Amino acid sequence: MHGAEMKTIGVLGGMGPMATVDLARAIVENTLAGCDQQHPPMIVDSNTRIADRTAFLTGRSEEDPRPEIIKSIQRLEQAGAGCIVMPCNTAHAFYDEISAAAAKPVLHMPEETARWIAEHHPEEKEIGVLATQGTYAAGVYGDSLRKFGLAQVKPDDAGREEATRLIYDGIKANNYDYDFSGYEQAIKAFKRETGIKVIILGCTELSVAHAFHPIEGIYADPLQIVARAAITLVNGRVVRESEDGPA
Amino acid sequence: MHGAEMKTIGVLGGMGPMATVDLARAIVENTLAGCDQQHPPMIVDSNTRIADRTAFLTGRSEEDPRPEIIKSIQRLEQAGAGCIVMPCNTAHAFYDEISAAAAKPVLHMPEETARWIAEHHPEEKEIGVLATQGTYAAGVYGDSLRKFGLAQVKPDDAGREEATRLIYDGIKANNYDYDFSGYEQAIKAFKRETGIKVIILGCTELSVAHAFHPIEGIYADPLQIVARAAITLVNGRVVRESEDGPA
Repeated sequence: MHGAEMKTIGVLGGMGPMATVDLARAIVENTLAGCDQQHPPMIVDSNTRIADRTAFLTGRSEEDPRPEIIKSIQRLEQAGAGCIVMPCNTAHAFYDEISAAAAKPVLHMPEETARWIAEHHPEEKEIGVLATQGTYAAGVYGDSLRKFGLAQVKPDDAGREEATRLIYDGIKANNYDYDFSGYEQAIKAFKRETGIKVIILGCTELSVAHAFHPIEGIYADPLQIVARAAITLVNGRVVRESEDGPA
Repeated sequence: MHGAEMKTIGVLGGMGPMATVDLARAIVENTLAGCDQQHPPMIVDSNTRIADRTAFLTGRSEEDPRPEIIKSIQRLEQAGAGCIVMPCNTAHAFYDEISAAAAKPVLHMPEETARWIAEHHPEEKEIGVLATQGTYAAGVYGDSLRKFGLAQVKPDDAGREEATRLIYDGIKANNYDYDFSGYEQAIKAFKRETGIKVIILGCTELSVAHAFHPIEGIYADPLQIVARAAITLVNGRVVRESEDGPA
Protein backbone atom coordinates (compact mmCIF):
# COMPACT_ATOMS: atom_id res chain seq x y z
CA MET A 1 0.00 0.00 0.00
CA HIS A 2 3.06 2.21 0.32
CA GLY A 3 5.42 3.16 -2.41
CA ALA A 4 8.52 2.71 -0.28
CA GLU A 5 8.93 0.27 2.56
CA MET A 6 8.52 1.88 5.94
CA LYS A 7 11.56 2.09 8.17
CA THR A 8 11.48 1.95 11.95
CA ILE A 9 11.21 5.14 14.03
CA GLY A 10 13.59 5.04 17.00
CA VAL A 11 12.57 7.05 20.05
CA LEU A 12 15.36 7.94 22.47
CA GLY A 13 13.20 8.48 25.51
CA GLY A 14 12.92 8.51 29.25
CA MET A 15 13.51 12.27 29.35
CA GLY A 16 10.89 12.22 30.81
CA PRO A 17 8.89 9.01 30.65
CA MET A 18 5.51 10.66 30.11
CA ALA A 19 6.82 12.90 27.34
CA THR A 20 8.15 9.74 25.72
CA VAL A 21 4.68 8.20 25.81
CA ASP A 22 3.18 11.41 24.42
CA LEU A 23 5.60 11.45 21.49
CA ALA A 24 4.75 7.82 20.75
CA ARG A 25 1.06 8.74 20.89
CA ALA A 26 1.61 11.72 18.59
CA ILE A 27 3.34 9.44 16.09
CA VAL A 28 0.41 6.99 16.12
CA GLU A 29 -2.24 9.74 15.97
CA ASN A 30 -0.53 11.61 13.16
CA THR A 31 -0.22 8.48 11.00
CA LEU A 32 -2.75 7.94 8.23
CA ALA A 33 -3.48 4.24 8.67
CA GLY A 34 -6.43 1.94 8.24
CA CYS A 35 -5.03 -0.98 10.22
CA ASP A 36 -2.13 -1.88 12.54
CA GLN A 37 0.16 -2.85 9.67
CA GLN A 38 -0.01 0.60 8.01
CA HIS A 39 1.71 2.25 10.98
CA PRO A 40 5.49 2.55 10.80
CA PRO A 41 7.28 0.19 13.20
CA MET A 42 8.63 2.06 16.21
CA ILE A 43 11.11 1.18 18.88
CA VAL A 44 11.10 3.23 22.06
CA ASP A 45 13.90 3.20 24.57
CA SER A 46 12.60 4.87 27.72
CA ASN A 47 15.99 5.07 29.38
CA THR A 48 15.31 6.51 32.81
CA ARG A 49 18.94 5.92 33.77
CA ILE A 50 19.83 9.10 31.83
CA ALA A 51 20.79 11.78 34.35
CA ASP A 52 18.91 15.09 34.57
CA ARG A 53 20.02 17.29 31.66
CA THR A 54 19.34 20.67 33.23
CA ALA A 55 21.11 19.83 36.49
CA PHE A 56 24.21 18.93 34.47
CA LEU A 57 24.07 21.89 32.07
CA THR A 58 23.64 24.43 34.85
CA GLY A 59 26.41 22.91 36.98
CA ARG A 60 24.12 21.71 39.78
CA SER A 61 25.19 18.11 39.18
CA GLU A 62 28.28 16.46 37.77
CA GLU A 63 26.30 13.41 36.66
CA ASP A 64 26.69 13.43 32.88
CA PRO A 65 23.62 12.33 30.90
CA ARG A 66 25.62 11.65 27.72
CA PRO A 67 26.97 8.11 28.36
CA GLU A 68 23.46 6.69 28.84
CA ILE A 69 22.18 8.65 25.84
CA ILE A 70 24.89 7.04 23.70
CA LYS A 71 23.93 3.60 25.05
CA SER A 72 20.35 4.25 23.98
CA ILE A 73 21.49 5.24 20.49
CA GLN A 74 23.34 1.95 20.20
CA ARG A 75 20.37 -0.07 21.49
CA LEU A 76 17.97 1.65 19.09
CA GLU A 77 20.21 1.15 16.08
CA GLN A 78 20.84 -2.48 16.99
CA ALA A 79 17.08 -2.95 17.21
CA GLY A 80 16.71 -1.62 13.66
CA ALA A 81 15.87 2.07 14.07
CA GLY A 82 16.04 3.91 10.74
CA CYS A 83 16.05 7.33 12.39
CA ILE A 84 16.13 8.68 15.92
CA VAL A 85 13.88 11.20 17.67
CA MET A 86 14.61 12.57 21.13
CA PRO A 87 11.56 13.77 23.06
CA CYS A 88 13.66 16.07 25.25
CA ASN A 89 14.40 19.61 24.15
CA THR A 90 17.17 20.09 26.70
CA ALA A 91 19.05 17.01 25.45
CA HIS A 92 19.46 18.82 22.14
CA ALA A 93 22.21 20.78 23.86
CA PHE A 94 24.29 17.65 23.08
CA TYR A 95 22.88 17.26 19.57
CA ASP A 96 26.19 17.40 17.68
CA GLU A 97 27.78 14.71 19.83
CA ILE A 98 24.67 12.51 19.73
CA SER A 99 24.32 12.87 16.00
CA ALA A 100 28.01 12.02 15.52
CA ALA A 101 27.58 8.87 17.62
CA ALA A 102 24.60 7.73 15.53
CA ALA A 103 24.77 5.89 12.23
CA LYS A 104 21.19 6.93 11.39
CA PRO A 105 19.76 10.43 11.08
CA VAL A 106 18.79 12.09 14.38
CA LEU A 107 15.94 14.57 13.98
CA HIS A 108 16.59 17.98 15.52
CA MET A 109 13.33 18.76 17.28
CA PRO A 110 14.00 22.48 17.96
CA GLU A 111 15.06 23.08 14.35
CA GLU A 112 11.98 21.24 13.06
CA THR A 113 9.93 23.49 15.30
CA ALA A 114 11.61 26.67 14.07
CA ARG A 115 11.03 25.55 10.46
CA TRP A 116 7.38 24.85 11.20
CA ILE A 117 6.91 28.32 12.69
CA ALA A 118 8.64 29.99 9.72
CA GLU A 119 6.22 28.15 7.41
CA HIS A 120 3.01 28.48 9.43
CA HIS A 121 3.44 31.89 11.05
CA PRO A 122 5.64 33.78 8.56
CA GLU A 123 4.54 37.15 9.95
CA GLU A 124 5.93 36.41 13.44
CA LYS A 125 9.61 37.17 13.97
CA GLU A 126 9.82 37.20 17.76
CA ILE A 127 8.89 33.85 19.22
CA GLY A 128 8.17 33.09 22.86
CA VAL A 129 10.05 30.13 24.30
CA LEU A 130 9.12 28.31 27.50
CA ALA A 131 11.89 25.93 28.48
CA THR A 132 14.15 24.63 31.22
CA GLN A 133 17.16 26.60 32.45
CA GLY A 134 19.31 23.97 30.76
CA THR A 135 17.70 24.60 27.38
CA TYR A 136 18.09 28.38 27.76
CA ALA A 137 21.67 28.07 29.03
CA ALA A 138 22.70 25.90 26.06
CA GLY A 139 21.01 28.23 23.56
CA VAL A 140 19.01 25.36 22.07
CA TYR A 141 16.07 27.44 20.84
CA GLY A 142 17.98 30.69 20.36
CA ASP A 143 20.26 28.97 17.84
CA SER A 144 17.51 27.00 16.11
CA LEU A 145 15.28 30.03 15.66
CA ARG A 146 18.16 32.15 14.39
CA LYS A 147 18.69 29.70 11.49
CA PHE A 148 15.23 30.69 10.27
CA GLY A 149 15.66 34.42 10.91
CA LEU A 150 13.65 34.33 14.12
CA ALA A 151 14.41 35.62 17.61
CA GLN A 152 13.81 33.89 20.94
CA VAL A 153 11.91 35.79 23.63
CA LYS A 154 12.10 34.41 27.17
CA PRO A 155 9.71 35.11 30.04
CA ASP A 156 11.01 37.06 33.00
CA ASP A 157 12.40 35.32 36.10
CA ALA A 158 8.97 34.81 37.65
CA GLY A 159 7.61 33.31 34.45
CA ARG A 160 10.56 30.97 34.06
CA GLU A 161 10.11 29.95 37.67
CA GLU A 162 6.48 28.98 37.06
CA ALA A 163 7.41 26.89 34.01
CA THR A 164 10.20 25.14 35.94
CA ARG A 165 7.85 24.38 38.81
CA LEU A 166 5.24 22.87 36.48
CA ILE A 167 7.92 20.77 34.74
CA TYR A 168 9.55 19.35 37.87
CA ASP A 169 6.89 19.46 40.61
CA GLY A 170 3.96 18.80 38.28
CA ILE A 171 4.70 16.54 35.33
CA LYS A 172 8.02 14.89 36.19
CA ALA A 173 6.71 14.26 39.71
CA ASN A 174 3.61 12.52 38.27
CA ASN A 175 1.44 15.04 40.14
CA TYR A 176 -1.83 15.19 38.22
CA ASP A 177 -3.52 17.39 40.82
CA TYR A 178 -1.07 20.19 40.10
CA ASP A 179 -2.54 23.70 40.41
CA PHE A 180 -2.04 25.42 37.03
CA SER A 181 -3.20 28.91 38.04
CA GLY A 182 0.27 30.38 38.62
CA TYR A 183 1.49 29.03 35.31
CA GLU A 184 -1.57 30.34 33.45
CA GLN A 185 -1.03 33.80 34.93
CA ALA A 186 2.63 33.65 33.92
CA ILE A 187 1.70 32.90 30.30
CA LYS A 188 -0.75 35.82 30.24
CA ALA A 189 1.88 38.16 31.71
CA PHE A 190 4.50 36.89 29.24
CA LYS A 191 2.29 37.73 26.25
CA ARG A 192 1.14 41.06 27.67
CA GLU A 193 4.65 42.26 28.55
CA THR A 194 6.42 41.17 25.37
CA GLY A 195 3.74 41.27 22.68
CA ILE A 196 4.71 37.81 21.38
CA LYS A 197 1.94 35.75 19.79
CA VAL A 198 3.43 32.28 19.19
CA ILE A 199 4.86 30.36 22.12
CA ILE A 200 7.05 27.29 21.76
CA LEU A 201 6.40 24.61 24.39
CA GLY A 202 10.14 24.11 24.53
CA CYS A 203 10.15 21.38 27.16
CA THR A 204 8.40 18.08 26.52
CA GLU A 205 6.83 18.20 29.99
CA LEU A 206 5.05 21.38 28.86
CA SER A 207 3.74 19.49 25.82
CA VAL A 208 2.36 16.90 28.22
CA ALA A 209 0.97 19.58 30.53
CA HIS A 210 -0.84 21.49 27.77
CA ALA A 211 -2.33 18.27 26.35
CA PHE A 212 -3.58 17.43 29.83
CA HIS A 213 -4.73 20.95 30.70
CA PRO A 214 -5.33 23.07 27.56
CA ILE A 215 -4.58 26.79 27.87
CA GLU A 216 -5.77 29.31 25.28
CA GLY A 217 -3.16 30.67 22.92
CA ILE A 218 -1.09 29.92 19.83
CA TYR A 219 1.51 27.31 20.61
CA ALA A 220 4.10 25.41 18.64
CA ASP A 221 4.34 21.95 20.14
CA PRO A 222 7.69 20.35 19.25
CA LEU A 223 6.42 16.85 20.13
CA GLN A 224 3.63 17.08 17.54
CA ILE A 225 5.87 18.72 14.95
CA VAL A 226 8.69 16.20 15.25
CA ALA A 227 6.20 13.30 15.26
CA ARG A 228 5.02 14.35 11.80
CA ALA A 229 8.59 14.85 10.58
CA ALA A 230 9.55 11.37 11.79
CA ILE A 231 6.59 9.65 10.11
CA THR A 232 7.49 11.32 6.82
CA LEU A 233 11.17 10.42 7.17
CA VAL A 234 10.41 6.69 7.47
CA ASN A 235 7.94 6.73 4.54
CA GLY A 236 4.79 6.62 6.63
CA ARG A 237 1.74 8.65 5.66
CA VAL A 238 0.83 11.70 7.73
CA VAL A 239 -2.75 12.78 8.44
CA ARG A 240 -3.67 16.16 7.07
CA GLU A 241 -2.72 18.96 9.44
CA SER A 242 -5.65 20.62 11.18
CA GLU A 243 -6.40 24.33 10.61
CA ASP A 244 -4.41 25.39 13.64
CA GLY A 245 -1.51 23.11 12.90
CA PRO A 246 -0.25 20.38 15.17
CA ALA A 247 0.28 22.69 18.13
CA MET B 1 15.95 5.02 46.77
CA HIS B 2 14.92 1.48 45.90
CA GLY B 3 15.83 -1.67 47.73
CA ALA B 4 16.50 -3.64 44.57
CA GLU B 5 17.76 -2.27 41.29
CA MET B 6 15.01 -1.79 38.76
CA LYS B 7 15.04 -4.00 35.70
CA THR B 8 13.76 -2.97 32.28
CA ILE B 9 10.15 -3.61 31.25
CA GLY B 10 9.95 -4.95 27.70
CA VAL B 11 6.76 -4.19 25.79
CA LEU B 12 6.03 -6.44 22.82
CA GLY B 13 3.75 -4.07 20.97
CA GLY B 14 2.30 -2.95 17.69
CA MET B 15 -0.82 -5.05 18.28
CA GLY B 16 -2.19 -2.39 17.92
CA PRO B 17 0.02 0.69 18.00
CA MET B 18 -2.35 2.81 20.10
CA ALA B 19 -2.87 0.04 22.65
CA THR B 20 0.91 -0.15 22.90
CA VAL B 21 1.06 3.56 23.71
CA ASP B 22 -1.72 3.17 26.25
CA LEU B 23 0.09 0.35 28.03
CA ALA B 24 3.25 2.47 28.16
CA ARG B 25 1.17 5.33 29.57
CA ALA B 26 -0.41 3.02 32.15
CA ILE B 27 3.04 1.90 33.25
CA VAL B 28 4.21 5.52 33.70
CA GLU B 29 0.99 6.62 35.43
CA ASN B 30 0.94 3.65 37.80
CA THR B 31 4.55 4.21 38.91
CA LEU B 32 5.19 5.97 42.19
CA ALA B 33 8.00 8.31 41.18
CA GLY B 34 9.19 11.78 42.09
CA CYS B 35 11.49 12.27 39.10
CA ASP B 36 12.40 10.67 35.75
CA GLN B 37 15.03 8.42 37.28
CA GLN B 38 12.57 6.71 39.66
CA HIS B 39 10.62 5.19 36.76
CA PRO B 40 11.69 1.73 35.63
CA PRO B 41 13.46 1.74 32.26
CA MET B 42 11.20 0.47 29.50
CA ILE B 43 11.82 -0.69 25.98
CA VAL B 44 8.87 -0.80 23.61
CA ASP B 45 8.93 -2.63 20.31
CA SER B 46 5.89 -1.48 18.35
CA ASN B 47 6.24 -4.13 15.67
CA THR B 48 3.52 -3.33 13.17
CA ARG B 49 4.88 -6.02 10.86
CA ILE B 50 3.12 -8.61 13.03
CA ALA B 51 0.18 -10.01 11.05
CA ASP B 52 -3.41 -9.76 12.31
CA ARG B 53 -3.90 -12.34 15.06
CA THR B 54 -7.64 -12.83 14.70
CA ALA B 55 -7.49 -13.24 10.91
CA PHE B 56 -4.96 -16.04 11.40
CA LEU B 57 -6.73 -17.75 14.32
CA THR B 58 -10.10 -17.79 12.57
CA GLY B 59 -8.59 -19.06 9.30
CA ARG B 60 -9.35 -15.89 7.31
CA SER B 61 -5.63 -15.43 6.59
CA GLU B 62 -2.65 -17.74 6.39
CA GLU B 63 -0.25 -14.99 7.37
CA ASP B 64 1.23 -16.22 10.64
CA PRO B 65 1.89 -13.55 13.28
CA ARG B 66 4.30 -15.75 15.25
CA PRO B 67 7.59 -15.25 13.36
CA GLU B 68 7.49 -11.46 13.85
CA ILE B 69 6.44 -11.89 17.48
CA ILE B 70 9.51 -14.07 18.06
CA LYS B 71 11.72 -11.44 16.37
CA SER B 72 10.36 -8.84 18.78
CA ILE B 73 11.11 -11.09 21.75
CA GLN B 74 14.70 -11.36 20.57
CA ARG B 75 15.04 -7.60 20.00
CA LEU B 76 13.60 -6.82 23.43
CA GLU B 77 15.86 -9.26 25.22
CA GLN B 78 18.91 -8.05 23.31
CA ALA B 79 17.99 -4.51 24.37
CA GLY B 80 18.00 -5.60 28.02
CA ALA B 81 14.35 -6.35 28.83
CA GLY B 82 14.01 -8.08 32.20
CA CYS B 83 10.43 -9.16 31.51
CA ILE B 84 8.01 -8.97 28.61
CA VAL B 85 4.44 -7.68 28.45
CA MET B 86 2.22 -8.09 25.38
CA PRO B 87 -0.52 -5.47 25.04
CA CYS B 88 -2.64 -7.77 22.84
CA ASN B 89 -5.08 -10.21 24.40
CA THR B 90 -5.51 -12.23 21.21
CA ALA B 91 -1.74 -12.85 20.93
CA HIS B 92 -1.99 -14.76 24.22
CA ALA B 93 -3.41 -17.59 22.11
CA PHE B 94 0.27 -18.25 21.34
CA TYR B 95 1.42 -17.67 24.92
CA ASP B 96 3.07 -21.06 25.47
CA GLU B 97 5.18 -20.79 22.32
CA ILE B 98 6.09 -17.16 23.01
CA SER B 99 7.02 -17.89 26.59
CA ALA B 100 9.14 -20.87 25.49
CA ALA B 101 11.01 -18.63 23.01
CA ALA B 102 11.77 -16.04 25.69
CA ALA B 103 14.63 -16.19 28.17
CA LYS B 104 12.85 -13.71 30.46
CA PRO B 105 9.42 -14.03 32.09
CA VAL B 106 6.46 -13.13 29.87
CA LEU B 107 3.50 -11.79 31.82
CA HIS B 108 0.18 -13.46 31.02
CA MET B 109 -2.22 -10.53 30.79
CA PRO B 110 -5.47 -12.54 30.81
CA GLU B 111 -4.36 -14.57 33.84
CA GLU B 112 -3.30 -11.42 35.68
CA THR B 113 -6.76 -10.06 34.92
CA ALA B 114 -8.52 -13.18 36.18
CA ARG B 115 -6.44 -13.06 39.38
CA TRP B 116 -7.31 -9.39 39.86
CA ILE B 117 -11.04 -10.12 39.50
CA ALA B 118 -10.84 -13.04 41.95
CA GLU B 119 -9.20 -10.69 44.47
CA HIS B 120 -11.27 -7.56 43.89
CA HIS B 121 -14.69 -9.01 43.08
CA PRO B 122 -14.71 -12.32 44.97
CA GLU B 123 -18.52 -12.47 44.93
CA GLU B 124 -18.68 -12.55 41.11
CA LYS B 125 -18.31 -15.96 39.48
CA GLU B 126 -19.65 -15.27 36.00
CA ILE B 127 -17.56 -12.68 34.21
CA GLY B 128 -18.44 -10.86 31.01
CA VAL B 129 -15.76 -10.90 28.33
CA LEU B 130 -15.63 -8.55 25.35
CA ALA B 131 -12.99 -9.71 22.89
CA THR B 132 -12.11 -10.48 19.30
CA GLN B 133 -13.26 -13.66 17.59
CA GLY B 134 -9.64 -14.80 17.71
CA THR B 135 -9.51 -14.46 21.49
CA TYR B 136 -12.80 -16.33 21.90
CA ALA B 137 -11.80 -19.03 19.39
CA ALA B 138 -8.51 -19.69 21.19
CA GLY B 139 -10.20 -19.81 24.60
CA VAL B 140 -7.82 -17.19 25.99
CA TYR B 141 -10.16 -15.81 28.65
CA GLY B 142 -12.19 -18.97 29.15
CA ASP B 143 -9.04 -20.82 30.21
CA SER B 144 -7.60 -17.98 32.29
CA LEU B 145 -10.82 -17.45 34.22
CA ARG B 146 -11.26 -21.18 34.84
CA LYS B 147 -7.92 -21.27 36.67
CA PHE B 148 -9.47 -18.96 39.25
CA GLY B 149 -12.80 -20.77 39.42
CA LEU B 150 -14.55 -18.23 37.21
CA ALA B 151 -16.68 -18.63 34.10
CA GLN B 152 -16.57 -16.59 30.91
CA VAL B 153 -19.84 -15.10 29.62
CA LYS B 154 -19.86 -13.83 26.03
CA PRO B 155 -22.28 -11.37 24.46
CA ASP B 156 -24.64 -12.67 21.78
CA ASP B 157 -23.78 -12.40 18.07
CA ALA B 158 -25.04 -8.82 17.79
CA GLY B 159 -23.01 -7.74 20.81
CA ARG B 160 -19.86 -9.39 19.54
CA GLU B 161 -20.42 -7.73 16.19
CA GLU B 162 -20.55 -4.28 17.83
CA ALA B 163 -17.32 -4.91 19.74
CA THR B 164 -15.57 -6.14 16.60
CA ARG B 165 -16.72 -3.09 14.65
CA LEU B 166 -15.43 -0.72 17.34
CA ILE B 167 -12.08 -2.56 17.45
CA TYR B 168 -11.41 -2.65 13.71
CA ASP B 169 -13.38 0.27 12.22
CA GLY B 170 -12.94 2.56 15.22
CA ILE B 171 -9.67 2.20 17.08
CA LYS B 172 -7.44 0.21 14.73
CA ALA B 173 -8.60 2.47 11.86
CA ASN B 174 -7.58 5.57 13.87
CA ASN B 175 -11.17 6.81 13.55
CA TYR B 176 -11.69 9.15 16.50
CA ASP B 177 -15.11 10.29 15.28
CA TYR B 178 -16.48 6.78 15.73
CA ASP B 179 -20.14 6.63 16.79
CA PHE B 180 -20.24 4.67 20.07
CA SER B 181 -24.05 4.43 20.40
CA GLY B 182 -24.39 0.90 18.98
CA TYR B 183 -21.60 -0.35 21.23
CA GLU B 184 -23.10 1.31 24.30
CA GLN B 185 -26.47 -0.30 23.59
CA ALA B 186 -24.75 -3.66 23.15
CA ILE B 187 -23.10 -3.38 26.58
CA LYS B 188 -26.44 -2.52 28.20
CA ALA B 189 -28.13 -5.47 26.49
CA PHE B 190 -25.26 -7.78 27.47
CA LYS B 191 -25.65 -6.91 31.16
CA ARG B 192 -29.44 -7.03 31.08
CA GLU B 193 -29.66 -10.39 29.32
CA THR B 194 -26.96 -12.20 31.29
CA GLY B 195 -26.98 -10.53 34.70
CA ILE B 196 -23.18 -10.22 34.70
CA LYS B 197 -21.72 -7.30 36.64
CA VAL B 198 -17.99 -7.24 35.84
CA ILE B 199 -16.88 -6.97 32.21
CA ILE B 200 -13.35 -7.65 31.02
CA LEU B 201 -12.18 -5.32 28.25
CA GLY B 202 -10.54 -8.34 26.65
CA CYS B 203 -9.12 -6.55 23.63
CA THR B 204 -6.58 -3.76 24.07
CA GLU B 205 -8.46 -1.64 21.52
CA LEU B 206 -11.42 -1.70 23.94
CA SER B 207 -9.11 -0.47 26.71
CA VAL B 208 -8.17 2.41 24.41
CA ALA B 209 -11.81 3.02 23.47
CA HIS B 210 -13.07 3.14 27.06
CA ALA B 211 -10.26 5.48 28.12
CA PHE B 212 -11.18 7.76 25.23
CA HIS B 213 -14.95 7.44 25.70
CA PRO B 214 -15.86 6.31 29.24
CA ILE B 215 -18.97 4.14 29.57
CA GLU B 216 -20.63 3.49 32.93
CA GLY B 217 -20.10 0.08 34.46
CA ILE B 218 -17.65 -2.14 36.31
CA TYR B 219 -14.78 -3.11 34.05
CA ALA B 220 -11.55 -5.00 34.46
CA ASP B 221 -9.00 -3.38 32.20
CA PRO B 222 -6.18 -5.82 31.42
CA LEU B 223 -3.86 -3.01 30.25
CA GLN B 224 -4.05 -1.29 33.65
CA ILE B 225 -3.80 -4.55 35.57
CA VAL B 226 -0.78 -5.86 33.67
CA ALA B 227 0.92 -2.46 33.89
CA ARG B 228 0.87 -2.69 37.67
CA ALA B 229 2.06 -6.30 37.61
CA ALA B 230 4.98 -5.36 35.34
CA ILE B 231 6.10 -2.44 37.53
CA THR B 232 6.13 -4.72 40.57
CA LEU B 233 8.00 -7.46 38.71
CA VAL B 234 10.91 -5.12 37.84
CA ASN B 235 11.12 -3.69 41.39
CA GLY B 236 9.40 -0.40 40.60
CA ARG B 237 6.97 1.15 43.05
CA VAL B 238 3.25 1.13 42.24
CA VAL B 239 0.88 3.97 43.15
CA ARG B 240 -1.89 2.97 45.51
CA GLU B 241 -4.89 1.52 43.70
CA SER B 242 -7.94 3.77 43.56
CA GLU B 243 -11.21 2.72 45.23
CA ASP B 244 -12.59 1.21 42.04
CA GLY B 245 -9.38 -0.50 41.11
CA PRO B 246 -7.43 0.13 37.95
CA ALA B 247 -10.34 -0.58 35.62
